[in-house]
Amino acid sequence: MLQRGHGPGAHATTYITTPRTPTITTPRHYLDNAATSWPKPPAVYEAVMQQMQAVGAAAGRGAYHDAVTSADVVQQTRAAIARLISAPSASCIAMAANGTAALNLAIQGIWPTPPPVAAHVVTTAAEHNSVLRPLQAMADRGGVELQTVPCDASGTVRAEQVLAAVRDDTQLVAVGHASNVTAAVQPIAAIGEALVDHPALLLCDAAQTFGYLPIDVQAWHVDLLASPGHKGGLGPLGTGFLYAAPHVQPRLTPSLWGGTGGNSDLLTMPDAFPQRLEAGNLNVPAIAGWLAGLRWLEQQPDPSQHLRVLSRRLDQGLEDLPGVRCLGVGHPLPLRSFVVAGLTPSDVGAILDAEFGVQVRTGLHCAALIHHSLDTQGEGTVRISAGHLTNEDDVAAALDAVARIAAEIHS
Amino acid sequence: MLQRGHGPGAHATTYITTPRTPTITTPRHYLDNAATSWPKPPAVYEAVMQQMQAVGAAAGRGAYHDAVTSADVVQQTRAAIARLISAPSASCIAMAANGTAALNLAIQGIWPTPPPVAAHVVTTAAEHNSVLRPLQAMADRGGVELQTVPCDASGTVRAEQVLAAVRDDTQLVAVGHASNVTAAVQPIAAIGEALVDHPALLLCDAAQTFGYLPIDVQAWHVDLLASPGHKGGLGPLGTGFLYAAPHVQPRLTPSLWGGTGGNSDLLTMPDAFPQRLEAGNLNVPAIAGWLAGLRWLEQQPDPSQHLRVLSRRLDQGLEDLPGVRCLGVGHPLPLRSFVVAGLTPSDVGAILDAEFGVQVRTGLHCAALIHHSLDTQGEGTVRISAGHLTNEDDVAAALDAVARIAAEIHS
Repeated sequence: MLQRGHGPGAHATTYITTPRTPTITTPRHYLDNAATSWPKPPAVYEAVMQQMQAVGAAAGRGAYHDAVTSADVVQQTRAAIARLISAPSASCIAMAANGTAALNLAIQGIWPTPPPVAAHVVTTAAEHNSVLRPLQAMADRGGVELQTVPCDASGTVRAEQVLAAVRDDTQLVAVGHASNVTAAVQPIAAIGEALVDHPALLLCDAAQTFGYLPIDVQAWHVDLLASPGHKGGLGPLGTGFLYAAPHVQPRLTPSLWGGTGGNSDLLTMPDAFPQRLEAGNLNVPAIAGWLAGLRWLEQQPDPSQHLRVLSRRLDQGLEDLPGVRCLGVGHPLPLRSFVVAGLTPSDVGAILDAEFGVQVRTGLHCAALIHHSLDTQGEGTVRISAGHLTNEDDVAAALDAVARIAAEIHS
Repeated sequence: MLQRGHGPGAHATTYITTPRTPTITTPRHYLDNAATSWPKPPAVYEAVMQQMQAVGAAAGRGAYHDAVTSADVVQQTRAAIARLISAPSASCIAMAANGTAALNLAIQGIWPTPPPVAAHVVTTAAEHNSVLRPLQAMADRGGVELQTVPCDASGTVRAEQVLAAVRDDTQLVAVGHASNVTAAVQPIAAIGEALVDHPALLLCDAAQTFGYLPIDVQAWHVDLLASPGHKGGLGPLGTGFLYAAPHVQPRLTPSLWGGTGGNSDLLTMPDAFPQRLEAGNLNVPAIAGWLAGLRWLEQQPDPSQHLRVLSRRLDQGLEDLPGVRCLGVGHPLPLRSFVVAGLTPSDVGAILDAEFGVQVRTGLHCAALIHHSLDTQGEGTVRISAGHLTNEDDVAAALDAVARIAAEIHS
């Protein structure tokens, strides 16, 4: 099955594998839901098709029948997002092309031009590059003084450490709800509660939790929350949103300028939120699919139950495997990173794909800093991530494959 | 059919219409292709579905079989775009969420921070707000000295006037290929030829022409060209691109920061173009549909022939109608704006929709300045816009409806 070889990795044996030839009977075990969820509920695909084929019109740009239908789809989606995160209203939700675009709208919107004195910002080593890179770009331009709070060896951040880094003049605290590398869930509510009387804004990157875990922006005192729609939210790729609390909306300056359908005589973006942040045509077919995904979620009695089952199976399957080190266990999200001694993560991923049809992501997972805490810098990890529609069989197949690889190399 | 009433428009009679009740037999005549084209070739819908249902993976983020398939779809689409605009290679094409996002990548990319001396920029009154608004935002921050060249009463810009505005220190000349209000085609090649030894960059907004009219960025000496994919390019909403000539690529700074799949250890965007401008997950299902649309275009012997037929019919149908003033005739794109004396454009649009199932856009069309030249400021125009898949019957139905409205009010 496996042939030993010598690859570029200095510290690990490389396996040369024969590419899997896809056939109609090749089993596929998709376990990269932390990148984007697949499959989606059938209603998602149907809604995209319905919008593309039967409606087709752009949203917010025309007054005719089908243009109104498109605008209504967008409005209903804003409302469904608002319900899911307990936002006060649909008008707090700005649409974005993906989670990264939404985070940029937030981070760039706070400081339209570099402030005279660099703004103090607290973030964490567990963040995704979609938080770290825009903040670093601001820091490189002198607009931000960036303070990065460490995480522990499971990727977990402690609220006390975040709060200890907050100064009187801190303007932004940016903490992700869960790590995309280890699934560690961070104490957003505790941080928000402690900052309730502090002028700093709390920005939460909910990329890994929106649609998976309960979120309550009001109870948690979250000022800004961004997420893609195509992960736990079950929308297609090309979807994302930024929530801005009503008191924050007036101070968010556009960082993307263009047509907005209305106020066309202005050379500036309109004042109204969320239109102020929504330049250019919205991706209505994808948003229509997202709405169907959100409705599917709303119809489930308890969507977190299946996730907990899968999470437990991952913990059980990865523990006690020879040479396998799992980074973070016991989290409610069915996402686990691990390394196999003697193999690079990319080799493990290649074998899983070629030999077992198990599709996982390997490497650094667009998270520049967390790997120093995990001791996985350089090569990163193998990440298995399941989602709402992942079968237990897929998780079992993945775990069985990992066990066989570990046994073969460590027997 | 029409009932006279009194609406908010001071200069026009308002008609109160009964909303059209859609039924299975209601004919729909979609003539808002300048907003987004509809319908698309069936292969576009099929490709979106195939990508969503059968592949599903994100692009550029994983090494497994279906992730490679997704990345290949993106790469093939870059190549097809490059062929269509005669770009030197697929690597000159950066993907964007829409045309506005692509234009912002260009305009914001040239000046990452306001330059010490405001950069002199020449643009025209015929531009869409997706060009005017980002430039105005830069001007408001002191980074740009904006000079706007007028257009004539048909929305046409003269090359000599643009070139006369160019100074030795001009850094950017931004001219749209065709007006989205009147379809006037601007002399991009002449401007590019004249600027070939000038350091100013030439940015072309090809939103209304990409996929419709021939474009040759190399022969025309265009440095930057941006367009959505969902108009003449026949992609779904959620698609767009920026072409950057090889010599321009090194100086384009990101204005959107986030994960890029590779180089995850960096807190900055990677140096490689186009990845430097492509933060966040690409919209692969829509890009797959776009690729199918571009292939459909490549398979047509002469896609411009149908457009010319429709354009002539629009000119013939709108001339000599009582009280109808058409703004620009004889253009190769089947897009015409007009006003009907005694009715606001929005009233005309409402009647066309409600009584005739004719779907057009009315108002200012996200173009803040052109209406002063057209003498349509305030209320704007009625815009009929056809596309590759518009039937002659749809155009005939629209023209017949306009004729009936004009006859009724001017008889």
